[in-house]
Amino acid sequence: MKARIYVKLKPEVLDPQGKAVSGGLKNLGFDGVRDVRVGKYIVLDMDDDASNGQAQVKAMCEQLLVNTVIEEYEFKIEP
Amino acid sequence: MKARIYVKLKPEVLDPQGKAVSGGLKNLGFDGVRDVRVGKYIVLDMDDDASNGQAQVKAMCEQLLVNTVIEEYEFKIEP
Repeated sequence: MKARIYVKLKPEVLDPQGKAVSGGLKNLGFDGVRDVRVGKYIVLDMDDDASNGQAQVKAMCEQLLVNTVIEEYEFKIEP
Repeated sequence: MKARIYVKLKPEVLDPQGKAVSGGLKNLGFDGVRDVRVGKYIVLDMDDDASNGQAQVKAMCEQLLVNTVIEEYEFKIEP
């Protein structure tokens, strides 16, 4: 099965990388951009017999993949 | 409107960051993990009057956000 995890900075945390991308887009003439946030997109390929996939992925996020102090995440699991 | 862009390395490109994460997860006891790929998750907040949002976001990806030599992307647009 596959787990797709989307990690982004919490709204109240400054995102310098997003600011840089935003500036770059404006320099290229894309004036309609108000704000950019850059996060991580993690795809896990896991053994299908992992019975409690939901709980496993949550544990991985909390223990390694996500810095829960400044980041928030969501994920979905596909067979 | 919001555009959510998911960027990941092409399957044939080595992903050292993914390999490192995979090793980290195994060290933590998550043995069911076969493969990990780490990409970018970009959220654009754009003016609602951008009529051709789809084409705009595609242009942004090709010109700045995505290295199309080694990366592939998909996006969705929300009102």
